[in-house]
Amino acid sequence: MDHSTDEPALLIALEAGLAATFRRRVRDRLASFGVQVSLVEGQGRNYLEVHGDVEPLRTLALDSWKGIDKALFLGAAHLHVTRTKTGKDDPAGKVAETSSAVQVGDLAIGGGSFSVIAGPCAVEEEERTLRLAAAVSASGCHLFRGGAFKPRTSPYAFQGLGDKALQILARAREESGLGIVTEILDPRDVEKVSSVADLLQVGSRNMHNYSLLKELGQTRIPILLKRGFSSTSEEFLLAAEYILSGGNPNVILCERGIRCAAATRQVVLDLGIVPELKKKTHLPVVVDPSHGSAEAYRVPALARAAVAAGADGVLVEVHDHPEEALSDGRQALSPEELKELVPVLNSLHGLLNNAETRQLNPLPGGTVASTMEEN
Amino acid sequence: MDHSTDEPALLIALEAGLAATFRRRVRDRLASFGVQVSLVEGQGRNYLEVHGDVEPLRTLALDSWKGIDKALFLGAAHLHVTRTKTGKDDPAGKVAETSSAVQVGDLAIGGGSFSVIAGPCAVEEEERTLRLAAAVSASGCHLFRGGAFKPRTSPYAFQGLGDKALQILARAREESGLGIVTEILDPRDVEKVSSVADLLQVGSRNMHNYSLLKELGQTRIPILLKRGFSSTSEEFLLAAEYILSGGNPNVILCERGIRCAAATRQVVLDLGIVPELKKKTHLPVVVDPSHGSAEAYRVPALARAAVAAGADGVLVEVHDHPEEALSDGRQALSPEELKELVPVLNSLHGLLNNAETRQLNPLPGGTVASTMEEN
Amino acid sequence: MDHSTDEPALLIALEAGLAATFRRRVRDRLASFGVQVSLVEGQGRNYLEVHGDVEPLRTLALDSWKGIDKALFLGAAHLHVTRTKTGKDDPAGKVAETSSAVQVGDLAIGGGSFSVIAGPCAVEEEERTLRLAAAVSASGCHLFRGGAFKPRTSPYAFQGLGDKALQILARAREESGLGIVTEILDPRDVEKVSSVADLLQVGSRNMHNYSLLKELGQTRIPILLKRGFSSTSEEFLLAAEYILSGGNPNVILCERGIRCAAATRQVVLDLGIVPELKKKTHLPVVVDPSHGSAEAYRVPALARAAVAAGADGVLVEVHDHPEEALSDGRQALSPEELKELVPVLNSLHGLLNNAETRQLNPLPGGTVASTMEEN
Amino acid sequence: MDHSTDEPALLIALEAGLAATFRRRVRDRLASFGVQVSLVEGQGRNYLEVHGDVEPLRTLALDSWKGIDKALFLGAAHLHVTRTKTGKDDPAGKVAETSSAVQVGDLAIGGGSFSVIAGPCAVEEEERTLRLAAAVSASGCHLFRGGAFKPRTSPYAFQGLGDKALQILARAREESGLGIVTEILDPRDVEKVSSVADLLQVGSRNMHNYSLLKELGQTRIPILLKRGFSSTSEEFLLAAEYILSGGNPNVILCERGIRCAAATRQVVLDLGIVPELKKKTHLPVVVDPSHGSAEAYRVPALARAAVAAGADGVLVEVHDHPEEALSDGRQALSPEELKELVPVLNSLHGLLNNAETRQLNPLPGGTVASTMEEN
Repeated sequence: MDHSTDEPALLIALEAGLAATFRRRVRDRLASFGVQVSLVEGQGRNYLEVHGDVEPLRTLALDSWKGIDKALFLGAAHLHVTRTKTGKDDPAGKVAETSSAVQVGDLAIGGGSFSVIAGPCAVEEEERTLRLAAAVSASGCHLFRGGAFKPRTSPYAFQGLGDKALQILARAREESGLGIVTEILDPRDVEKVSSVADLLQVGSRNMHNYSLLKELGQTRIPILLKRGFSSTSEEFLLAAEYILSGGNPNVILCERGIRCAAATRQVVLDLGIVPELKKKTHLPVVVDPSHGSAEAYRVPALARAAVAAGADGVLVEVHDHPEEALSDGRQALSPEELKELVPVLNSLHGLLNNAETRQLNPLPGGTVASTMEEN
Repeated sequence: MDHSTDEPALLIALEAGLAATFRRRVRDRLASFGVQVSLVEGQGRNYLEVHGDVEPLRTLALDSWKGIDKALFLGAAHLHVTRTKTGKDDPAGKVAETSSAVQVGDLAIGGGSFSVIAGPCAVEEEERTLRLAAAVSASGCHLFRGGAFKPRTSPYAFQGLGDKALQILARAREESGLGIVTEILDPRDVEKVSSVADLLQVGSRNMHNYSLLKELGQTRIPILLKRGFSSTSEEFLLAAEYILSGGNPNVILCERGIRCAAATRQVVLDLGIVPELKKKTHLPVVVDPSHGSAEAYRVPALARAAVAAGADGVLVEVHDHPEEALSDGRQALSPEELKELVPVLNSLHGLLNNAETRQLNPLPGGTVASTMEEN
Repeated sequence: MDHSTDEPALLIALEAGLAATFRRRVRDRLASFGVQVSLVEGQGRNYLEVHGDVEPLRTLALDSWKGIDKALFLGAAHLHVTRTKTGKDDPAGKVAETSSAVQVGDLAIGGGSFSVIAGPCAVEEEERTLRLAAAVSASGCHLFRGGAFKPRTSPYAFQGLGDKALQILARAREESGLGIVTEILDPRDVEKVSSVADLLQVGSRNMHNYSLLKELGQTRIPILLKRGFSSTSEEFLLAAEYILSGGNPNVILCERGIRCAAATRQVVLDLGIVPELKKKTHLPVVVDPSHGSAEAYRVPALARAAVAAGADGVLVEVHDHPEEALSDGRQALSPEELKELVPVLNSLHGLLNNAETRQLNPLPGGTVASTMEEN
Repeated sequence: MDHSTDEPALLIALEAGLAATFRRRVRDRLASFGVQVSLVEGQGRNYLEVHGDVEPLRTLALDSWKGIDKALFLGAAHLHVTRTKTGKDDPAGKVAETSSAVQVGDLAIGGGSFSVIAGPCAVEEEERTLRLAAAVSASGCHLFRGGAFKPRTSPYAFQGLGDKALQILARAREESGLGIVTEILDPRDVEKVSSVADLLQVGSRNMHNYSLLKELGQTRIPILLKRGFSSTSEEFLLAAEYILSGGNPNVILCERGIRCAAATRQVVLDLGIVPELKKKTHLPVVVDPSHGSAEAYRVPALARAAVAAGADGVLVEVHDHPEEALSDGRQALSPEELKELVPVLNSLHGLLNNAETRQLNPLPGGTVASTMEEN
């Protein structure tokens, strides 16, 4: 990657009173990673400024090296996922930044639009699936989701209908006209699953499955990447970077709740990550309020909150008989509830994007992007 | 409290093959708590049904008693904080429920209104405080907050101006016309602090300080009770119950973020607790997006999300020079940012409460309260 | 699996006043899963007792079904991982239970023995690796660990030497005589990696990678399964069940620390899971105090604590120049520190297993297993 | 406090290209806190070195100041709780450090000794309490614990017998000869409770109750300070600092488990904090494996692990009929189990402190304190 080398990217505080020979060892070892190192003398301390590509140094526990007291990385990492300024600041003091949309068939997710993805947790039977797809379409949603291969905590729980579900999804796409979102579990299944899916979901359990992410990086298939159960925003962005650095720019990030002892059912939807991701990355951000709430009665409130926080879309589980669902029944909305919810979400998105109250995608300092480009 | 005893409140599964003498010992010991116990015979197991007030049994680790396999509490606890139905279901299948408003001076918090409380984390100097109070008032906020006694992690951090801050707050009230919210730390200070405050805040660090809660239960002062750093919704409601059971019904609950390893700065705003509290309690619920985001740039997004999730108000930190604040500067909005934010929040609240899209305060099953009574 | 059907495995509390037709629908739907359902009438409530294999019902959110108030599973699941009684209780009231050992080459892990696995996080260069293997062997350790394929948070961090590392490990095995432990990331690499490894590690990031676990279930290769970053003990056991239910009984469980907001570096070693796993499963349990402490200076204390808690072994990271390690340098012991540590761990294990103070593997009630069989 | 001012305590990286006037404003504002500020010029960046007492700057969110990019505190805070070197390094490269013992009546806790504190969660009835105190004494324990005032999550749970319990405890002390440990909840009760108690416990719920801590700082009563439910090690030490900075040096730290989503019953005993506290503070550290395990069957394993990790003592809950306990019955050992456990703990402590295997209180780098002074 291209890095500006005018400013140092790393400052190292050496131990007080460090002998010159040790200082030289530290400098030499740093330099062996291809960076430029220069000494800065302070009063009672000396420091090393490091210029160049410091990415490989980030994982090295520098502050445990002999002779180093502390290491301070200056500025954020420059990654493919990173939001960057388009150029000069505008006169009003508001920065212009790029924001990507990911094209899923005819649909652009991100870049100012608002999308609703809905469907059952798992594809169960053909007739029910087609009925649900029709209901999802009639509610004004944009994509239909349904799991064919399900990653279940227990090997004895329903694992999805597999290949048969893919056939059902293909038919649902044909009949409803909606693009299909389904989960990919195994790097060996990419071709098969993507023959049906318009958007491939990588679930929370596989956010750290780098073999799978690398495989998906070799394709150009749109990927919906869910945050891991207890992954930080940095780990989440770096998981996306695995796909982008492989050459596939089509990644949509999905917040779906993280584990937390104090939260009900030990899961909390982290909506604060929405403005954070909007600040740090150009990738679209959607929110799954179903897994993030774990109970259907909380889904509408959290879907509304996701829109208000600036999400580019939501991913909602729907089932016509939630109590009969073979997985995640507790958190599924009924088709009627979905139909009530979608227009409210659209109204909210409209309100927040109109002229007077334009508030979405707040940038650092609370300012608002004056230019929002799609690419 | 008054409990219906028609239905059992607790079912106990006895160990398989338990001898009659042991079964009798379990029955007798249960009965010694003043409840009614009856035997139910199953196929391969026997059970005990318990009728009456089972509250004192909830904390007894019943499933560790000899002879008891498992204990299952049926129905929620009946507490002062509990939301209860007003009577018969209405014909449209929507239930009518009571929702309390808490009167703070002229202002009713909850019961359908929307309130904004704003001000600096700590009262620092008189002039700055008065200037901030004027700005808060001009932005259309309803109450002015400012800490006089600050609970700081370090004994060497600024602990608040104490009594002097109370005088400044009294003057701010006089000049701005806004009611005052300030924190109470010590049961011995209740009289002194409440002579100035219209609403007393119990901070996260003291949510479990039951001596303080009991003292406040003896008064009728409106209390803003913040959720503890890692308190569950049940613990939060029971902390409120300490105040209500003492005789003070004037409690406003405040979600302010909980600790979570994966969240940025290890704090996550739990907006899912808003619909949960709306379902479980009649008390007003406000949200503090400042502590819940820990960074100012995320505050507007989370304030909007709080409104969309159904909060009755928000509590926002403001400072005219956030970078000079003696505490919590990182998360304070500027007066200008506040002024931009308040009308957006009001628009959101308006949208969600108008005729077509009335979505706030969803009740179980996604239905909407058709009656919203203040008491 | 074989289940005793004498006792009900599930009790369902129906909603109070549920009409008979609804009750019948619930019964029929339950029965469609192949279980036996019988009605139990209480005073003010009715219940359904369910006999048979209730495993598929565990994931169905029964308490969200119409007509069901609450569901209570009685007794633990009967899984391949489950610890089971060998037969009749002995006269002294102490139960005899089976405890598995997993054979790794000549070494039996579990079943009363104590094993130390040590080595660098990643295989870096041949000479260093061979030197470390010699040091590990000289310290009295039993297996040599070293990563060939490394799952790194950043795609730009050192990813391991891959195939070249496998060759180096093969040579380390030859020279040191120690069995080799290395990580498997991809189901397509099982044959290649297991041609060198005596024990295949599944890392925390892949504990939920069920495609990989199923692949490993088809082999008989010994597997070291690490607990996920925020996985519960139940999820951990069910991940092992994926391997066992595929036909591979050779699984060793490894606690390595879980994420926790309050813990230093947000990771805490959960030693309480050791007695829990010893109670619930017959599989061997080892502990990784290196990842579980995240800092080398805490490793000896936590390694000792792991032995005292009843672990069958520890997994320790060692590096001759920790400050130069390409990964996880912060937490690696030096060869000298390892040499000091191993005899202390052996002494502790010896003390806790001798006649007077036999305390390891405590069973429920604090009693001690009187029979410890290897299989 | 006394700080060496030879070395800078804080380094500030200014924003790249910061104008001189802004740089001066930052310098002036820093200097207004009484510290010395000097400029260090780098290549592409400038820095400010800060000498002097930087404690008040730690809470100021320096990196949100205009003109400051990042702030790096060098070296640990110098507090009353901080472990400090006694003087010159010894020739073998092992540092000598001070380690405090806290005198509780005739008993010295810390400083090389090992203490067991045991008793029921709450004082329930006189006869039972006296019987338990006798059993605790007969098992070789050193102090008797029992709650008189209980902080319970529910206001309807048993709140302790209060003043009557204090009388019972006074009698238990007289009869058993054991010192008494009991909890203090309210700053107004200090005199009353300490008239009976030899060691006052501040529970987890009150670790952040600074009014109480300040009150206790005004006394010389030995304090057992428990870690908060989700408090970091830094917050824990600063809570102790509240007491020490008030003038009371007699503080014993107690790890008792922290909240964690993945842990069983959402609590995990953080034994990694034991070596961390031993490195950072001279105060004695004890461990409560009862609250830290939440289930009695795990208590012996975790008590042993605590000793092995280097704790100066353990705090164990005991009840003669745990299933009848009015609080925390699930986690209480029986007197028989306690009697079995104590000699094992003593053996472990002996093993780890004898000449060959001296491993306790490891210092940074894995070395062992060669001098352990009591004060």
